[in-house]
Amino acid sequence: MFNRMVEQHSLDAVFHALADGTRRAMLERLSQGPHSVGDLAAPFDMSLAAASKHIQVLERAGLVRREIEGRSHKCSLEAAPMHAGAEWLRHYERFWNQRLDALERLLRQDSKKRKRK
Amino acid sequence: MFNRMVEQHSLDAVFHALADGTRRAMLERLSQGPHSVGDLAAPFDMSLAAASKHIQVLERAGLVRREIEGRSHKCSLEAAPMHAGAEWLRHYERFWNQRLDALERLLRQDSKKRKRK
Repeated sequence: MFNRMVEQHSLDAVFHALADGTRRAMLERLSQGPHSVGDLAAPFDMSLAAASKHIQVLERAGLVRREIEGRSHKCSLEAAPMHAGAEWLRHYERFWNQRLDALERLLRQDSKKRKRK
Repeated sequence: MFNRMVEQHSLDAVFHALADGTRRAMLERLSQGPHSVGDLAAPFDMSLAAASKHIQVLERAGLVRREIEGRSHKCSLEAAPMHAGAEWLRHYERFWNQRLDALERLLRQDSKKRKRK
């Protein structure tokens, strides 16, 4: 069930949805609880229509669920599709760790040399 | 030094670069070692020019370093900017874990009910 949920919303759509600061800020807001489209648009200097387009990109990636409550649309966070993105990135962890280890060695050698002087 | 490296290549550029299956496949190839532009293009049914455009997107995100060796361009993986993306996603881990826990509970209840029947 979980796997199917993730496959439906491909990595392309997830990473595309995350490639925009406004959409990332909307997700951060939704991590505090459900919000209406108006609430989500409010912190940004943008029309409801523009905010709605961003929310559509998030919905297409499966990251946001929109429900109609009376006259307002309530949006909730759906974090599950992010899991596939995080898993993809995890494979590269050893590469940036190698890089960090190399930087640390360089800094240590540098501080040893300075102490000797 | 590491922080500056990451800040220069914003999350927008990193997630945008990752939002394409061809570019993700190129990064997977580069994780095995440096490759020429021709090598990177070969598995895909695309021109060198098209492959070069994808590599440019990866370079702009700081994920690939291109060096000229004689007449060929050698590309190497630079995984460090992915770290910021992984860190961003890490904040949402608890949300997809909550969801997974809830699914697990549902499945357990379901199997208990079946056993009783």
